[in-house]
Amino acid sequence: MITSELRCEVETLYANYAAALDDNELERWPDFFTEDCLYKLVPRENWERNLPVALMLCESRAMLRDRVTAVRNTAVYAPRSLRHFITQFRIAEETPERLRVSANYMVLQTLVDDLTRIQNAGRYLDLIVRTESGLRFKEKVCVFDSVLVPNSLIYPV
Amino acid sequence: MITSELRCEVETLYANYAAALDDNELERWPDFFTEDCLYKLVPRENWERNLPVALMLCESRAMLRDRVTAVRNTAVYAPRSLRHFITQFRIAEETPERLRVSANYMVLQTLVDDLTRIQNAGRYLDLIVRTESGLRFKEKVCVFDSVLVPNSLIYPV
Amino acid sequence: MITSELRCEVETLYANYAAALDDNELERWPDFFTEDCLYKLVPRENWERNLPVALMLCESRAMLRDRVTAVRNTAVYAPRSLRHFITQFRIAEETPERLRVSANYMVLQTLVDDLTRIQNAGRYLDLIVRTESGLRFKEKVCVFDSVLVPNSLIYPV
Repeated sequence: MITSELRCEVETLYANYAAALDDNELERWPDFFTEDCLYKLVPRENWERNLPVALMLCESRAMLRDRVTAVRNTAVYAPRSLRHFITQFRIAEETPERLRVSANYMVLQTLVDDLTRIQNAGRYLDLIVRTESGLRFKEKVCVFDSVLVPNSLIYPV
Repeated sequence: MITSELRCEVETLYANYAAALDDNELERWPDFFTEDCLYKLVPRENWERNLPVALMLCESRAMLRDRVTAVRNTAVYAPRSLRHFITQFRIAEETPERLRVSANYMVLQTLVDDLTRIQNAGRYLDLIVRTESGLRFKEKVCVFDSVLVPNSLIYPV
Repeated sequence: MITSELRCEVETLYANYAAALDDNELERWPDFFTEDCLYKLVPRENWERNLPVALMLCESRAMLRDRVTAVRNTAVYAPRSLRHFITQFRIAEETPERLRVSANYMVLQTLVDDLTRIQNAGRYLDLIVRTESGLRFKEKVCVFDSVLVPNSLIYPV
């Protein structure tokens, strides 16, 4: 039974997740996941045809940390601000410890001296588990609507 | 009295409504309405001046079904992805069975090989009734902000 | 303790706030603030470097009223529709009477005969107090992501 208390808890998780990315505190990003996890960023076309190619694919929290290191140390890109809008939450309880959550997301991007533009939009298809330290993502699949993105997708979504 | 449980129920209705459209399951769209209903898509300018012309106008669930048939079988248009963002819900209870709900909406549209763009934005002015099978729209009036839309508006909003 | 009832109350405040601005009922805007208040609209760059320059700065409800008068009577600009999307609420209770709320916001703008475009996006960093007439903003700091805005920012955010 999805109570409003549970919905509130789920929305708070996503608000905190968005804030970590929007505040450019990327180092905190892996903390939203379980040790053993799946993070996948995949175009809608591939997802619907069951094609395996993803733009980002991490299969553990350690790989998420590697990704953060890559963004911080090796990637070359213009500085930018991100801003997440996550709405239309749909929550289904599988067990008291596991939730399936889907939501629509949009990421706005602002480059220095440019207007704010839509960078990426799509939907999250997530599996959330209750751990001792609160709700964590066990799976986060981001299915995005456009094959094109303005500049490359550097940061996770 | 608008409790958080009621708000939760209303937001779930809109999340399901958005998902049906965003997942391109247009055939499920009429199921969100009562048999005897009103669906209207009207530019802000006409709405504010009480001008009757609407871009879409359906006065029963049967007409909604006709609309779906038209979109599927007779209209010619490029394939696209839609993505709804519905926020700022304002809920007023008229009776235990009837709710007036308004909200802001934005629909993003992605054509193949194009960026994700704003297709349409405005506000919903809805009358929702409680039926045996859950909450249903008795009236859904979509007042959109721009007279211009990128490509034509083919799908309902 | 942030209950879903409190969250519901906070979201309703923002929905009403957005509606006043989106319905062009600017005269009601100061009513959302306490008599002694702070309203500030500042670019992210200045905010992060602690630079004082703001695009709008009002330090009392009387100044907010002055601002409304300026928009209505002295500013010259093309008519436009605004549409707010406020999401990812994060609520922290300081005392039973004071709440710190942050959220992501986006304002869409539609000029006559133009498409709907992103005007401004960023985050709210607000202090809300409980008064006899309900929740009111004691501080509303709007930190926006882009230094550029399409047309000037005339209306408050």
